[in-house]
Amino acid sequence: MVTEDEAMGRAIALAARGLGTTSPNPVVGCLLLSADGEVVGEGFHAYAGGPHAEIVALAQAGERARGGTAVVTLEPCNHTGRTGPCVKALVGAGIRRVVIAVDDPNPAAAGGAAALREAGVEVALGVRRAEAEAGNVAWLTAVRRGRPYVTWKFAATLDGRSAAADGTSQWITSGPARTDVHTLRSTVDAIVVGVGTVLADDPQLTVRDLRDGSLAITQPLRVVVDSAGRTPATARVRDASAPTWIATAAELGTGPDGRVDLSALLSTLYARGVRAVLLEGGPTLAGAFLSAGLVDRVIGYVAPKLLGAGLSALVDAGVATIAEAIDLELTEVVQVGSDLRFTATLRHKEA
Amino acid sequence: MVTEDEAMGRAIALAARGLGTTSPNPVVGCLLLSADGEVVGEGFHAYAGGPHAEIVALAQAGERARGGTAVVTLEPCNHTGRTGPCVKALVGAGIRRVVIAVDDPNPAAAGGAAALREAGVEVALGVRRAEAEAGNVAWLTAVRRGRPYVTWKFAATLDGRSAAADGTSQWITSGPARTDVHTLRSTVDAIVVGVGTVLADDPQLTVRDLRDGSLAITQPLRVVVDSAGRTPATARVRDASAPTWIATAAELGTGPDGRVDLSALLSTLYARGVRAVLLEGGPTLAGAFLSAGLVDRVIGYVAPKLLGAGLSALVDAGVATIAEAIDLELTEVVQVGSDLRFTATLRHKEA
Repeated sequence: MVTEDEAMGRAIALAARGLGTTSPNPVVGCLLLSADGEVVGEGFHAYAGGPHAEIVALAQAGERARGGTAVVTLEPCNHTGRTGPCVKALVGAGIRRVVIAVDDPNPAAAGGAAALREAGVEVALGVRRAEAEAGNVAWLTAVRRGRPYVTWKFAATLDGRSAAADGTSQWITSGPARTDVHTLRSTVDAIVVGVGTVLADDPQLTVRDLRDGSLAITQPLRVVVDSAGRTPATARVRDASAPTWIATAAELGTGPDGRVDLSALLSTLYARGVRAVLLEGGPTLAGAFLSAGLVDRVIGYVAPKLLGAGLSALVDAGVATIAEAIDLELTEVVQVGSDLRFTATLRHKEA
Repeated sequence: MVTEDEAMGRAIALAARGLGTTSPNPVVGCLLLSADGEVVGEGFHAYAGGPHAEIVALAQAGERARGGTAVVTLEPCNHTGRTGPCVKALVGAGIRRVVIAVDDPNPAAAGGAAALREAGVEVALGVRRAEAEAGNVAWLTAVRRGRPYVTWKFAATLDGRSAAADGTSQWITSGPARTDVHTLRSTVDAIVVGVGTVLADDPQLTVRDLRDGSLAITQPLRVVVDSAGRTPATARVRDASAPTWIATAAELGTGPDGRVDLSALLSTLYARGVRAVLLEGGPTLAGAFLSAGLVDRVIGYVAPKLLGAGLSALVDAGVATIAEAIDLELTEVVQVGSDLRFTATLRHKEA
């Protein structure tokens, strides 16, 4: 016997297992409790086109769901997309009560709570809302803004350098930090870099299995922001291990700086179903994203080293004086190997 | 009744109360236990020329010290400096056993343990040695090296900038971090800055009482590294609130970079009784100290902000390629106000 609050905690944890593979859908987790409060089914949404969390849980519970409670991290859908509406399935299974953490901001899918109530189902909304929002922050932010949620990731020394004076940068951070980046990549739909990074480091930008080094089954889209189309034909980012998009000014138009229009880039990615983007560099592209107000989260791997020269982690972010500094809210600082990982969100100034 | 180990913990805490006012002497704490293990006296060395910790504790204990144990953080002195030898005082008071954390590396004062044994006193050496060494690290390192212990303090944004593009830097860090710097200054004998910092920011470089803003009674020596003697006559660092030394190349000679010879600077400071130095900037002077291997500890206040342009926290530290990066060992990361304070020691590479 578990409480609805505990059940929601478990549903949120289940939901997180879908991170990186559900876009353009959100991550969702569901627990079914029988009339006497026993867990009789659980599920999460694993991939777009696959069954929703509620359907997985109902299939597991079968007749034991009748008269019971569904605990679900996001308002159940009331529309027929690639799958039928979950509201209909819940009502059909005889669910008496539905406990929801977050309401669905997507107009096409919303209205589930109202439809449930109309069908005589008791609905409770807002249980562990903040925790569930945090678990779905990329998707929720993307849907609310109509552009992907952008995380800027950088690696630097304590004095803010991402490469030494001679351009060498392998490796500033420790092995565990570099492994952690693969885990981070596995949670996004696209990895974005500037052509300068491709020309300097020739990265492959794939997600590898951390146990045996093999390529993960699902790979994020690799995006090279390349105003003039300078990405070499032989660049590793063009290999067959993952899909790649060379985003040029010819295709997207130019922004105020004469380079690829980053808003157009993000809109195009959103239209392609991308909800979460990892911006991996270099410093000038990061500066352009930050200048344009297009970064939602910063993850910095800071190595306990000093260089005193070389490439800065961030260049030209549109800040001229100290009062214009970009304010961050630190949400986490943890040790990863010998490095520190900072996670922060941007404090957006009132316009 | 306390154990000798607990007594040493208390003695180490007492010793720390002398930080910043005992140079050229070490900080020392002492607890006296009666024959039946009760604390009958305690003391610490408060200022050079003042009574040693043992003498303070013996005065408090009086006859109750007879047959008891002295627990002291540093080997008692056996020489007559400005005060008489502590060994003689301990023996005279009838102390039966002396428990010592760290032996004295200063040849002029050493030999205390041997002299105690010769006088029939039982001596135990090494109790909480690491903790006591840490508490006296500046003095111990200084005496072993024959130059002051140098802490480089900087304040920067998460991307390693210490000023914005237009030169503004007030304030990168939060009020609590700036207050913390006053506490840090109160533990050293000298504050060193480059003339560039004086010309750019005109700092006063004093220690102020944190409750009412008044000047602390003891002020560190203010040192301006000023190769060509450009410190203005009206600079705040020249005011009457603390002693000041404008260290010029004419006085000290030049190093390999044609500027003030930093080894000569430190030797001169050592000869003047300075054991702990706080290097406060700017980035070029910090780079010169680091290049020369003259920094022992780094304390960085990192603000959760991004600038993307402006002065870097560190310039020209003698590192050309990533393999030469200056490796730090992080010993502490704590939140101070909205900022993070990193404390790290330098991992000195084997020659």
